[in-house]
Amino acid sequence: MALKIALLPGDGVGPEVLAQAVKCLEAVEETFNQHFIFKEAPVGAIAIDKKGTPLPDATLKLCKESDAVLFGAIGDPKYDNDPDAKVRPEQGLLQLRKELGLFANIRPVLSHPTLLDKSPLKKKVINGTDFVIYRELTGGIYFGEKKLNDEGTKASDLCEYTEDEISRIAHLAFKAAKGRKKKLTLIDKANVLESSRLWRKVVTKIGESYPEVALDFMFVDNAAMQIILNPKQFDVILTENMFGDIISDEGSVIGGSIGLLASASIGEENALFEPIHGSYPQAKGKDIANPIASILSAAMLLEHFGLTEEAWAVKKAVDKSLKKGVVTPDLKENSQYGTNQVGDFIAHNI
Amino acid sequence: MALKIALLPGDGVGPEVLAQAVKCLEAVEETFNQHFIFKEAPVGAIAIDKKGTPLPDATLKLCKESDAVLFGAIGDPKYDNDPDAKVRPEQGLLQLRKELGLFANIRPVLSHPTLLDKSPLKKKVINGTDFVIYRELTGGIYFGEKKLNDEGTKASDLCEYTEDEISRIAHLAFKAAKGRKKKLTLIDKANVLESSRLWRKVVTKIGESYPEVALDFMFVDNAAMQIILNPKQFDVILTENMFGDIISDEGSVIGGSIGLLASASIGEENALFEPIHGSYPQAKGKDIANPIASILSAAMLLEHFGLTEEAWAVKKAVDKSLKKGVVTPDLKENSQYGTNQVGDFIAHNI
Ligand SMILES: CC(C)[C@H](C(=O)O)[C@@H](O)C(=O)O
Ligand SMILES: CC(C)[C@H](C(=O)O)[C@@H](O)C(=O)O
Repeated sequence: MALKIALLPGDGVGPEVLAQAVKCLEAVEETFNQHFIFKEAPVGAIAIDKKGTPLPDATLKLCKESDAVLFGAIGDPKYDNDPDAKVRPEQGLLQLRKELGLFANIRPVLSHPTLLDKSPLKKKVINGTDFVIYRELTGGIYFGEKKLNDEGTKASDLCEYTEDEISRIAHLAFKAAKGRKKKLTLIDKANVLESSRLWRKVVTKIGESYPEVALDFMFVDNAAMQIILNPKQFDVILTENMFGDIISDEGSVIGGSIGLLASASIGEENALFEPIHGSYPQAKGKDIANPIASILSAAMLLEHFGLTEEAWAVKKAVDKSLKKGVVTPDLKENSQYGTNQVGDFIAHNI
Repeated sequence: MALKIALLPGDGVGPEVLAQAVKCLEAVEETFNQHFIFKEAPVGAIAIDKKGTPLPDATLKLCKESDAVLFGAIGDPKYDNDPDAKVRPEQGLLQLRKELGLFANIRPVLSHPTLLDKSPLKKKVINGTDFVIYRELTGGIYFGEKKLNDEGTKASDLCEYTEDEISRIAHLAFKAAKGRKKKLTLIDKANVLESSRLWRKVVTKIGESYPEVALDFMFVDNAAMQIILNPKQFDVILTENMFGDIISDEGSVIGGSIGLLASASIGEENALFEPIHGSYPQAKGKDIANPIASILSAAMLLEHFGLTEEAWAVKKAVDKSLKKGVVTPDLKENSQYGTNQVGDFIAHNI
């Protein structure tokens, strides 16, 4: 039975990098005799331009009917500095996460042997780093009530969590830790926030059912330091939505380039795969954006459906491009390879 | 007229490091013929133990009657993992900030020539870094309404800001930028949060009165990366309470040790000076905690009252201890100098 994959290229460099991921999936079809059914739909700024809304009904419908969503990027600077904008591209992604129930965002952070020099961190600090962040994705301050008074002089956002929201992602994270180095670190601000104290209580209780996993706690301010000071101390990080957003982007400096980091967003019935980088509007159309994060998102998709061998082939091909230096300029100064060529190279090596 | 300085040693290593700052202020008294009146009061876990509350009335009264507060540290692990604790040491500090109206927390981040090797970041990345963070300190999610339902299954924290709260710290930050490299970066999450959009609107408007200052905006997730990738791009960073907490601790890795970073918390009528490090309970009583952050807090205090020459003498003496390697073990492996000896050395060199 063929996997139905919804393609949502989105904004900025999204379409360019997603095209390379699709190339790789097509190579997987050929090599492994698989069959995928691709269907494309607009989301984000481009959807606002075309349909007046960042998540058109037809796009949502397509995603719901598909087995998985492969996402490009979202965001356009013309909305960022307009505090009065009524619609925003990002709403498309947030609404999609909510509608599909994608409550867990999973972001692996690895130091890459061939890229140790690219990181702003010292080799000895990052060498051997291997952790994964479980970020709650459909709750917290992202989705709590937002208010602006009539005079436009007072604004608020509510950060709210329920035991159920915490517990479903906590179970996923504990299970992941069980299959890894058996350590789980909850990042919160329990010395200040009521919602963080609930996280700590619920996670502590759930931890009792995973006695083989060592659970510890870290305040988010300290965590922001520790991730840089000693990234090797982490195995599985579990955290709420806003802290996860910050910590996982910060963690991206370890790998040497944000252009390498993929993520999976998982729900009960749906799954979405996307690079963690944004729409990078300055690079749009220039054939310089790094397609690897998008290609690795496709590898995460394959893994998610148990296509382990296929995922492995994609990751191997990515490794080869890194080792051979067939990479975009963000990874190698004056590299002559563009987005497309890197995509071709990786696809051919699958 | 003698400055009245309230001493609040607090918890963990607070008393030890504060004692060194006081030594240095006493050296300033001698060398510069100044006179300070010191009065001490309990705050934090120790105040809970003694008086049942983290901020006893007498402590607050002393602070209000003083010209400035010199603060040690706060926090005790026995409260951190107890989600049901009714009183917490941190409440003492938060309440103090609120009661004294200390709305601006100012944290300089500098790379120190003699400590470039201590940082987990590469020399070429941090060399020459010199920025300052203006963190809003009495608003936002720290002080918004907190709720927990009766069943203990749902918790929330409200992040609220008014135009006035934003505007008073924005003016301070713009003024600081005017006297520096004339660049101000507002860190927010305006693509998701209503309160961030208010920040962006208010700060943009205020920026018009500071045409010589270049204003730019950065999403907090991107900022968490940029501070590591290219810290030299920053001059003055302005941000709300929670983001400032995270970003400023993260920034501390640049200097090579969190044990070096001081901060000033400023209000209309009061000012408090403290190290940015916490109570570091593991080191309590061991004479190993780095006293420099506390000593530099005292230097910031002197500067605040226009005692520029005195502040300079303290900073010079700190430099000397760094250059001569008279430092605690966090800065030099197997260093034989303890907290007290480092304090003595610096005080003697004032
Ligand atoms: C685009 C934005 C709304 C989004 C987020 O904050 O979640 C992005 O930064 C991410 O991390 O996926
Ligand atoms: C102790 C804690 C409440 C405090 C804060 O979060 O503000 C500390 O981390 C700080 O940055 O001064």
